[in-house]
Amino acid sequence: MPRDAILFHKKLQGKIFVGSKIDKITDENLQLIYTPGVATVCKEIFNHPKSKYQLTSKGNNVAIVTDGTRILGLGDIGPDAALPVMEGKSVLYRKFGNISAFPICLDTKDKKQIVETIKAISPVFGAINLEDIESPKVLEISQELEEILDIPVFHDDRHGTSVVVLAALINSLVIVNKKISEVKIVIIGAGSAGYGIGKLLSFAGCKNIMVLDSKGAIYKGRKESMNKYKEEIAEFTSREESGTINEAIVGADVFIGVSGMKNLLKAEMIKKMNKNSIVFALTNPYPEINPVLAKKAGARIVATGSFSYENKVNNALVFPYLMRAILDLKIRKITLDILYKVAVVIANTIPKNKLREDNIIPEISTKTLQKRITSILKKPTAKEKKSR
Amino acid sequence: MPRDAILFHKKLQGKIFVGSKIDKITDENLQLIYTPGVATVCKEIFNHPKSKYQLTSKGNNVAIVTDGTRILGLGDIGPDAALPVMEGKSVLYRKFGNISAFPICLDTKDKKQIVETIKAISPVFGAINLEDIESPKVLEISQELEEILDIPVFHDDRHGTSVVVLAALINSLVIVNKKISEVKIVIIGAGSAGYGIGKLLSFAGCKNIMVLDSKGAIYKGRKESMNKYKEEIAEFTSREESGTINEAIVGADVFIGVSGMKNLLKAEMIKKMNKNSIVFALTNPYPEINPVLAKKAGARIVATGSFSYENKVNNALVFPYLMRAILDLKIRKITLDILYKVAVVIANTIPKNKLREDNIIPEISTKTLQKRITSILKKPTAKEKKSR
Repeated sequence: MPRDAILFHKKLQGKIFVGSKIDKITDENLQLIYTPGVATVCKEIFNHPKSKYQLTSKGNNVAIVTDGTRILGLGDIGPDAALPVMEGKSVLYRKFGNISAFPICLDTKDKKQIVETIKAISPVFGAINLEDIESPKVLEISQELEEILDIPVFHDDRHGTSVVVLAALINSLVIVNKKISEVKIVIIGAGSAGYGIGKLLSFAGCKNIMVLDSKGAIYKGRKESMNKYKEEIAEFTSREESGTINEAIVGADVFIGVSGMKNLLKAEMIKKMNKNSIVFALTNPYPEINPVLAKKAGARIVATGSFSYENKVNNALVFPYLMRAILDLKIRKITLDILYKVAVVIANTIPKNKLREDNIIPEISTKTLQKRITSILKKPTAKEKKSR
Repeated sequence: MPRDAILFHKKLQGKIFVGSKIDKITDENLQLIYTPGVATVCKEIFNHPKSKYQLTSKGNNVAIVTDGTRILGLGDIGPDAALPVMEGKSVLYRKFGNISAFPICLDTKDKKQIVETIKAISPVFGAINLEDIESPKVLEISQELEEILDIPVFHDDRHGTSVVVLAALINSLVIVNKKISEVKIVIIGAGSAGYGIGKLLSFAGCKNIMVLDSKGAIYKGRKESMNKYKEEIAEFTSREESGTINEAIVGADVFIGVSGMKNLLKAEMIKKMNKNSIVFALTNPYPEINPVLAKKAGARIVATGSFSYENKVNNALVFPYLMRAILDLKIRKITLDILYKVAVVIANTIPKNKLREDNIIPEISTKTLQKRITSILKKPTAKEKKSR
């Protein structure tokens, strides 16, 4: 398989290209595409700035920005080696969202310079997708950009992952007949994904959440290795003292792994979980536990982030469709309310009577996803409001 | 016509798109395109950095970078209004060079920040095309980038324009039966284009060149409004005292307008030129003189940069083909020698017996151009060298 992937990429020499919407160039259309006609279009935008959304590609362009510091579970491999992942995202944006997403792999890890670079290149884009940048730096970048840009900033590792996890969890809980407000959830990993998932699950009504990083459970008053985002996590976690993964897992209903660590979860840990346990081992490329082993150890529902197994809890199911809606509806800020609504419609895409242990989340190619997501996020028109 | 251009652009909502080379997404190829397979490709690039040219789109990606300060003859209209021109260039790059060129319109005019931004985004690109940035800032940017980047920096306003002008001039001189070493050439405009044209014509053997800016002729010892690049111009200009355009034009064989000023050249000025005069009024979107008026005033050969008239002396004839060769041959630095060779092969594309006053330069769509340009720039292999 690994060799296959290299041959596949070598054959293509890049998975994406920049194409022209004009098929045939003639002396006539050159006068429109290029000079002198294009000058009229430039002047129109200069005089009426909003017309750029009608007259250029801006409104459908997304920058997939990374500094290469946290690529999949591979860690800091730099901007060159990050490009294949960003091209892969671009392919999915095109295929499922009909979006022009261009990879921007940055030759800098400096927070200030990343913010300045994104600001500098923003005129060409309708939205920014932050990708695989180390935490908590990326959370600060995201916050700063939201303040200075006039286009939305989508942080896929946080936003996208949290949506797909909540969607999969909603359906899993239906199958095992447990309530979201009653289950104990253990999240391993307190980077962008762990932070985003924790916040959204809390928003969705979970009362018993533990989030662990490499130092153990995060709780109010912890001294070691904290930051402003972990303080936020401490606000919604239930535990008020330290705890290792071995301690935390006891009596848990749900395990969510976004640790970046292959084979972190052992069979004996699953055995300490409650009956009808749910295991989402989401680290890529290799999950926290092999799903076959997890099942064997007694987990009732098992999912990974990989496309090699069933129950693909991967943000690829979210970002193309959600971004399409963001661009079409000119959404400026991605809120927890938006993420919650999208998770619910994704979950509901599978009718209750079709839910099974190996069918908790729709396939990425599900045709109705776009319409459902865009509809739920559409603000009611004045007329619709009135008729309520 | 102007209205046509706006309707044309409104219909397309952008002339370019980012496309996927993979037509159909399946669960199988998702494992190669995305996770887990893509991780192997990332690791391969991490371990063998040069493989990025085989495994990603980098080698065929060009950034068209502008800050919007000198868009066509429209001046400083900003990055938003610049985008339609950059998209037009991208279309031509795709259609004639088979290149993925993505517009980067910068929300900064600061030289240092422009250099830093381009450096930061460079990992994704195989070459940089600087475009429509004000001079002399852009010449400094170009020089700095050449020193710090490991990819070529093509400055189209300078490099591209100089090549198409020299090619057109070579053929025009054949028609009027004058020698490049003997003619008097007056260049109006000392920005990137005037600087580039002057340098290349001098390299090509012109001995009698005048370059004028808004203060008149540029000459050694001029005090007013000089900079390091105008000092370079002063090295090859013949005039050693001041002179207005009215004075300079007397006895000139060739007028080259890259002034950015519509209708700058008057009929009475052309009447002061030598017999068989050549007038290249290249400012876009509107030339220094209407070509019909120029002919009527006595010019034997007239060309513009517009696609609305015959003799289209526009760098669009150069940049897609030259960039293709630069990328394919891994050329690191664009030298005067390279530009000269390309100008000669472009000129020679029209057989001598086909040269006419209204046919001095090949059409942009000429099929043989690419092969001719790539061949002339190909370094001889060791074997070829030996057989000489």
